[in-house]
Amino acid sequence: MENKIIRIGIVGYGNLGRGAELAIEKQSDMTLVGIFTRRAPSDVQPVFTNTHVYAYEELSQYQDKIDVLILCGGSASDLPQMSPELVTMYNIVDSFDNHAKIVDHLHHVQEAATKSGKVGVISVGWDPGLFSMNRVLGEIVIPDGGTHTFWGEGLSQGHSEAVRRVTGVKHAVQYTVPIEDVLEKAREGIGADLSAADRHKRVCYVVADEKDYERIEQEIKTMPDYFAPYETTVHFISEAQFLKDHQKMKHGGFVIRSGNTSSENKQAYEFSLALDSNPKFTASVLVAYARAAFKLNQFGETGAKTAFDIPLSFLSPNPEKI
Amino acid sequence: MENKIIRIGIVGYGNLGRGAELAIEKQSDMTLVGIFTRRAPSDVQPVFTNTHVYAYEELSQYQDKIDVLILCGGSASDLPQMSPELVTMYNIVDSFDNHAKIVDHLHHVQEAATKSGKVGVISVGWDPGLFSMNRVLGEIVIPDGGTHTFWGEGLSQGHSEAVRRVTGVKHAVQYTVPIEDVLEKAREGIGADLSAADRHKRVCYVVADEKDYERIEQEIKTMPDYFAPYETTVHFISEAQFLKDHQKMKHGGFVIRSGNTSSENKQAYEFSLALDSNPKFTASVLVAYARAAFKLNQFGETGAKTAFDIPLSFLSPNPEKI
Ligand SMILES: NC(=O)c1ccc[n+]([C@@H]2O[C@H](COP(=O)([O-])OP(=O)(O)OC[C@H]3O[C@@H](n4cnc5c(N)ncnc54)[C@H](OP(=O)(O)O)[C@@H]3O)[C@@H](O)[C@H]2O)c1
Ligand SMILES: NC(=O)c1ccc[n+]([C@@H]2O[C@H](COP(=O)([O-])OP(=O)(O)OC[C@H]3O[C@@H](n4cnc5c(N)ncnc54)[C@H](OP(=O)(O)O)[C@@H]3O)[C@@H](O)[C@H]2O)c1
Repeated sequence: MENKIIRIGIVGYGNLGRGAELAIEKQSDMTLVGIFTRRAPSDVQPVFTNTHVYAYEELSQYQDKIDVLILCGGSASDLPQMSPELVTMYNIVDSFDNHAKIVDHLHHVQEAATKSGKVGVISVGWDPGLFSMNRVLGEIVIPDGGTHTFWGEGLSQGHSEAVRRVTGVKHAVQYTVPIEDVLEKAREGIGADLSAADRHKRVCYVVADEKDYERIEQEIKTMPDYFAPYETTVHFISEAQFLKDHQKMKHGGFVIRSGNTSSENKQAYEFSLALDSNPKFTASVLVAYARAAFKLNQFGETGAKTAFDIPLSFLSPNPEKI
Repeated sequence: MENKIIRIGIVGYGNLGRGAELAIEKQSDMTLVGIFTRRAPSDVQPVFTNTHVYAYEELSQYQDKIDVLILCGGSASDLPQMSPELVTMYNIVDSFDNHAKIVDHLHHVQEAATKSGKVGVISVGWDPGLFSMNRVLGEIVIPDGGTHTFWGEGLSQGHSEAVRRVTGVKHAVQYTVPIEDVLEKAREGIGADLSAADRHKRVCYVVADEKDYERIEQEIKTMPDYFAPYETTVHFISEAQFLKDHQKMKHGGFVIRSGNTSSENKQAYEFSLALDSNPKFTASVLVAYARAAFKLNQFGETGAKTAFDIPLSFLSPNPEKI
């Protein structure tokens, strides 16, 4: 197999797209052909001045110049349409994270990819992605036990937006934080049936006028679904401090599997991530799976793949050295 | 592909062999044909009364009755010979753990397996095995960083034996324990270049006559290579307490990868195991790879494979559900 440079296109330029641009720069076996956006290309400012930006509509013209597209659109409405559409022309990789719809998404990509003879790697990143792999592997090697997922400490976009909608809030972020005691108990195998609200607390940092503090705190803490069932703390901070400390999209979490391999012994398996930047890490994972999509297709594979279908050797830039 | 029961043979009945017998019992898609031993079969007492024990020499007669052999011999002298020999007749899986010789072992198994048309999965378990996978995956997704391995808290056979050789020692175990501060710093990305002695301390539990305590402690702590470079603690305990608390072969450890996915952010990846029983957990992993060896061979694959070559879906008893 010839050892060629893998030519990548990025589709969509938000947090993940920017992370992919940076991650590709770190790979010796890849080159970035360009970013494809639905906005006016002149409105998009890439990190590197020599990165090309093209219009989404031009994509069909790059089929002999690009080996894999990294799809960085949103899971809610972009990817369900883009992934099946673009896999008709390219090997693709996406980070589709709507857990309830992954099976549907897999079928749509599978149908289109089988016809086109391309590979579509879906739902990779950290969750879904590395966390899914660890949930599955933990269950395989510790068949008699419980699986515990904790998210955080991490920024929740949805909850931050909910806080920002409260009257008087100027800036706000919300971090989801595992409850330390519950995490410790999970390591002992206790609490696999607990709800997300039993496992996590919510911590908000809010910028507002002092006169509104009491009302805002009350409104946040009683917001149904979002906050009411959770232990919630609200910190009021200055705008300067907000801009200094709360611009990173940190995230991470824990997957714990604990139980027995046979009756009389207790085994604990734990995987965790503590990420300063959720989108930059996710993009780094996407880039590794872009390599796999390319190699699998070179080996004659076609169709939709998940993280469960791909050996680690396909992700590595130096498989001969691992 | 027909959904048949996978027929397993266990070769060698020590700690791992016993663990394999127990682990197979937990699998709905497997059946144990028997244990093959180099000792007199009547000298081997399996866990379950209906488990058959055969002589190693009889192995050639079971080629149409067994799908995969799980090799539970020792890495020092059994596996280098057994794995290439038995893969001429059977799909095999082993837990060969002599890190420096894995490449040689791979070549020997590869040569024999390619000729016989069988699959030989080598060096699976926890280390090598799950730890190797996490070292590789951590380096792929965090390309710019350091990898830190800590072992323990766990029983070291070699060090326990070294303590037992000290005059006057009646019983002894030695646990390797990660140094907490160094572990914490690894999570911050500090200390990837530290030696094993900088990362671990050694804790011994010894049964002896009180008059010998001082000398024994001194001899242990000054033993070159084994203990001298390490922070070592020696606890003298009663025989009763020794038999009560120190019969389990507990082990585990941590693989930490920390660094940057791109310049301005810090990402930490951590995998850990806390095992009450090292051999029972290792056997549980071996059993999952026995399933993979069988399935890979059914799909027409042959040759030597490591954990890097095998997708998780091949390990699962329910691949359609993951
Ligand atoms: N699996 C995982 O572990 C994981 C982790 C994190 C995220 N994700 C998934 O990744 C998806 C994308 O995340 P993201 O943080 O990159 O989302 P985002 O920043 O909102 O970007 C999504 C899309 O919105 C468009 N966009 C970005 N900035 C814009 C702006 N200023 N004005 C108008 N449009 C803009 C871009 O498309 P155009 O350039 O075409 O306009 C971009 O591709 C999420 O939906 C999530 O599902 C998965
Ligand atoms: N990859 C990993 O994570 C990992 C983890 C743990 C261990 N390992 C590897 O697994 C290997 C086996 O470990 P183990 O703890 O099962 O070793 P073990 O108990 O010493 O057994 C090794 C072999 O010795 C023979 N044996 C056992 N008990 C005996 C007895 N009472 N008298 C005479 N012979 C006896 C057995 O062969 P016969 O029945 O043919 O006599 C057995 O297969 C180790 O060498 C290690 O390299 C790997």
